[in-house]
Amino acid sequence: MTGHATLVGGGPGREDLLTLAAVRALAAADVVLYDRLAPHEGLAELAPNAELVDVGKRPGHHAIPQSEIEALLVRHALAGRHVVRLKGGDPYVLGRGSEEVLACHRAGVRVEVIPGVTSAVAVPGAAGIPLTHRGISHLFTVVSGHAPLTDDELTHLAGLGGTIVVLMGVNSLPSLTAGLVRAGMSSEMPVAIIERGFHADQRTTVGELTDIVFAAGRAHVTSPAVVVVGEVVRLAHDGDADAAELMERAVGFAAVAT
Amino acid sequence: MTGHATLVGGGPGREDLLTLAAVRALAAADVVLYDRLAPHEGLAELAPNAELVDVGKRPGHHAIPQSEIEALLVRHALAGRHVVRLKGGDPYVLGRGSEEVLACHRAGVRVEVIPGVTSAVAVPGAAGIPLTHRGISHLFTVVSGHAPLTDDELTHLAGLGGTIVVLMGVNSLPSLTAGLVRAGMSSEMPVAIIERGFHADQRTTVGELTDIVFAAGRAHVTSPAVVVVGEVVRLAHDGDADAAELMERAVGFAAVAT
Repeated sequence: MTGHATLVGGGPGREDLLTLAAVRALAAADVVLYDRLAPHEGLAELAPNAELVDVGKRPGHHAIPQSEIEALLVRHALAGRHVVRLKGGDPYVLGRGSEEVLACHRAGVRVEVIPGVTSAVAVPGAAGIPLTHRGISHLFTVVSGHAPLTDDELTHLAGLGGTIVVLMGVNSLPSLTAGLVRAGMSSEMPVAIIERGFHADQRTTVGELTDIVFAAGRAHVTSPAVVVVGEVVRLAHDGDADAAELMERAVGFAAVAT
Repeated sequence: MTGHATLVGGGPGREDLLTLAAVRALAAADVVLYDRLAPHEGLAELAPNAELVDVGKRPGHHAIPQSEIEALLVRHALAGRHVVRLKGGDPYVLGRGSEEVLACHRAGVRVEVIPGVTSAVAVPGAAGIPLTHRGISHLFTVVSGHAPLTDDELTHLAGLGGTIVVLMGVNSLPSLTAGLVRAGMSSEMPVAIIERGFHADQRTTVGELTDIVFAAGRAHVTSPAVVVVGEVVRLAHDGDADAAELMERAVGFAAVAT
């Protein structure tokens, strides 16, 4: 008898940000493949009947290749088990979930995807930063910090005028900020780096486009972190004079737009 | 005694896509302000002790102005109640949640935001469309279809080369697609319109940039719907020859990128 696979969006890491559907899938799992980006502290209680497999690291601390994760997913399902692949955030946001789904399709394994709260939205929110705000930003772009952006991408991101969210954005921060300045973005554009979103030691470092790399260095910012570039960052500083002024501007725009 | 306000992301409309934190907040609510975009069919059971207030429409079917929703939120909290404002998707994605948070701050009302599964990601996923896929798209932009985009925005969106997601995108579809073609996007770029995501009558209409408006008209597509523009739309057609070819291309790119 063939089993099946369920890709579960685990959200930004806090257990109560799992969906009811995620909790149900975990409770019914025979095997759970998880990694450090997914919530896993309470996993033994959430998936009491499952074998828990950490696919984030293998002995000796090398990362397990993506192809090996896909092979495991398929192998367990073909052996008749209900395999849950627990991923951080949403499976379809920069997490290679679609590759895992394709691997299942190719092997004839039935696969379901349960969406999750994506860190791209939730982690800025946890730092008080809305991605959109009437009169300030009516669009946002989410990008991975794993690979540097091309000059073309930087030009269009700077020109678009919306909020930019970079997941895993610490290592690429110098090339991103230099590239955006080169592409014409204001050197005073506010930038926030949120480390360890939703954990007890969550921390936000704020600066402007031209000094945030320095500020990040001074604060010893480390991965994983979410980077937000855009005027909306000012909305997080409530009480601050600049923010008050921006809020007034926002109210003014909204009045015109309504 | 002052109460407090909680903005709750209700997700894309299916009750099991509420988070545990959302369920807890609803269970503890004295008042719930909801509208048609938030899941509300099971609300009486989810919030058994709460007065349920539909702020989506008022008698005579006029929409309640945003300022009135904010005033209600503040008034109930100042009267000592725990007010939950249940919103569709995530409160900080194009839902004016940040305006409601600011209204609370201005009135001295304590306010918390619980993130939710955003329809921008989850509804395409429900139609089998990942927003990112290695080798095809490593970024995506989410935009509201309420207001037409400027020529500048269209140029940069077309130039960026990532996936474009438009929430409430039915009415603006003609201006969006014409604008993207004018901005240089390939006329063969695939477009998907997903109506009533996660409901029993969910439906996806697929076309290319230059014929999707015609296809939408023929299919009598109606709001609310999520529009996705990008090569990733092809990944939803599994079994289709084009998709197979694209998948091979994706695998090829991934091999180079790894």
